[in-house]
Amino acid sequence: MAQTAVVYFSGYGHTQRVAEYVAQGAGAPLIEIDADGNLTDAQWETLDAVDAIIMGSPTYMGMAAWQFKKFADLSSKRWFAGKWQGKVAGGFTISGHLSGDKLSTIQYFITLAMQHGMVWVGQAEMGDGTINRLGSNSGLMAQVGNTESAAAIPDGDLETAKKYGARVAEIAGKLAV
Amino acid sequence: MAQTAVVYFSGYGHTQRVAEYVAQGAGAPLIEIDADGNLTDAQWETLDAVDAIIMGSPTYMGMAAWQFKKFADLSSKRWFAGKWQGKVAGGFTISGHLSGDKLSTIQYFITLAMQHGMVWVGQAEMGDGTINRLGSNSGLMAQVGNTESAAAIPDGDLETAKKYGARVAEIAGKLAV
Amino acid sequence: MAQTAVVYFSGYGHTQRVAEYVAQGAGAPLIEIDADGNLTDAQWETLDAVDAIIMGSPTYMGMAAWQFKKFADLSSKRWFAGKWQGKVAGGFTISGHLSGDKLSTIQYFITLAMQHGMVWVGQAEMGDGTINRLGSNSGLMAQVGNTESAAAIPDGDLETAKKYGARVAEIAGKLAV
Amino acid sequence: MAQTAVVYFSGYGHTQRVAEYVAQGAGAPLIEIDADGNLTDAQWETLDAVDAIIMGSPTYMGMAAWQFKKFADLSSKRWFAGKWQGKVAGGFTISGHLSGDKLSTIQYFITLAMQHGMVWVGQAEMGDGTINRLGSNSGLMAQVGNTESAAAIPDGDLETAKKYGARVAEIAGKLAV
Repeated sequence: MAQTAVVYFSGYGHTQRVAEYVAQGAGAPLIEIDADGNLTDAQWETLDAVDAIIMGSPTYMGMAAWQFKKFADLSSKRWFAGKWQGKVAGGFTISGHLSGDKLSTIQYFITLAMQHGMVWVGQAEMGDGTINRLGSNSGLMAQVGNTESAAAIPDGDLETAKKYGARVAEIAGKLAV
Repeated sequence: MAQTAVVYFSGYGHTQRVAEYVAQGAGAPLIEIDADGNLTDAQWETLDAVDAIIMGSPTYMGMAAWQFKKFADLSSKRWFAGKWQGKVAGGFTISGHLSGDKLSTIQYFITLAMQHGMVWVGQAEMGDGTINRLGSNSGLMAQVGNTESAAAIPDGDLETAKKYGARVAEIAGKLAV
Repeated sequence: MAQTAVVYFSGYGHTQRVAEYVAQGAGAPLIEIDADGNLTDAQWETLDAVDAIIMGSPTYMGMAAWQFKKFADLSSKRWFAGKWQGKVAGGFTISGHLSGDKLSTIQYFITLAMQHGMVWVGQAEMGDGTINRLGSNSGLMAQVGNTESAAAIPDGDLETAKKYGARVAEIAGKLAV
Repeated sequence: MAQTAVVYFSGYGHTQRVAEYVAQGAGAPLIEIDADGNLTDAQWETLDAVDAIIMGSPTYMGMAAWQFKKFADLSSKRWFAGKWQGKVAGGFTISGHLSGDKLSTIQYFITLAMQHGMVWVGQAEMGDGTINRLGSNSGLMAQVGNTESAAAIPDGDLETAKKYGARVAEIAGKLAV
């Protein structure tokens, strides 16, 4: 089976919780970007080794948090060496508004994955009010009010996250053969 | 006072209803793109004459409807002659999902406005659960379930539409002096 | 081996020429969208049958041509039935400017592919001044001056198109096993 | 006359040089984001005071540099207080490829400006091979090869930058009355 990793930044625990469900669905370890936007060498090596990388960040001011962008900028060494070419990629975000600019964050994840020569896998569940409640396809979106804790994220959003992780890992499995 | 026009395509009446509220806020005439993506000569001339153009379309398959895109392609004559340079522009969309790809449609409206050399005015109300319920800033978003009629569009979305029309017209008024 | 098809609209022959090179690389038939934005039933069935679909359009007024968007809107029947889920997707565009809004067109192709539940494959060649001259990764870009014929499209752009077709087909082959 | 400021991050001096031309056209001070993504209190206060803010960053890994994104995230205090509402905004970027993902960076500047309730002014010069060589309208783009110094940025790109600064300041002047 393909190996998948979830690399993410979480500001207040919301993205962390979504990441846990994505990782559970994908059978993936969690690689957390720290508050300064850094990973350890061991974390970078995990990302180099896996078949699929799923990226996560809250949407802050219309885009992934700066700590995620610092990770992206630091990944330029991998890009230059073509190290992530052909890997599978996916991504997720959460914010306080129903729509807001979450699509902007997902679009950036795609742009980054494309620069690395990765293959992008979106979210394919049809929306039914619970699963894929927000109607996102380019990646996985979750939402909870700005003043609410991570515990308040709707179950359906988390279940969708789990299904999404499973989908990315399944497609990575086919490509990794 | 500046003159504003609302140019839009509506498939099943939902965009039409939002357009009416935007137009009411802006004190603007409605210019409807027909089912073949065409405007009459008189409608084009109205667009040429006004100080601000607000664009509207449902989001179908991740973007403005093809009829709107045909309008955009036909506007290339105006672009080539620089006829709309310096006008104010805004835009709105509606779809069945809370998030979906409405931002993609708004982003396209912006790209089109920029090609024409127009000045873009977004939606500036902070979200409070009723006004700007969906948390959109790049333009105006409304939403109602796919199986529901235009009459079911939430009042808050329509009120936001009216405020948005007023904002675009107000800024156009300052620029048109 | 996986079967790939190239579906495209060409206004003045430029996109047609790029499509031919993409198709050559992919070993794919050409499915041309007509001047009214339509395909024949047989063309739709070809798209239903293949493992990978590569989309192409010129960039007009900041986005794919309206005929391509009509094709996209008409594909909603396939979307609703989930017919294209899991297929591989790719895309290409050409315009008269070095940068312009070609990325906007490619971004839309991705958004459309994601709505269909497809897997996106970008352009992975590093730019060297000839191959991937324009430095595009999200999809394939070609460029030639607005007053020039399709014959003037640079050889490197066409060679990149061929390599891109081959890449999409290769990845589709792995996923189709 | 309206007051404009240019806020930018420059990694290796290329963005710095473009910023200087934009600032010259706009009659604007330069506000440089430091290597840690920070501004001084005095720099923030300048941004609060001006009528127009022009944003600049190189395009790194498909988007504005992380230092710029940190600035954007830190601007959330201004956003929350609505301090920048109604100001004029513009943006510019430079990268090593002719197209690359510069549009992605400009799109993000727009998204950020919209969240702040600002009014976006793009680049309106028609491309002629020298002025607006790259064919960008959503904002200002410049380009020079990855191994070349800032001194090698084409004169036409810099002249376009100057014209762009002048345009943003002129429109800000009308709105500030």
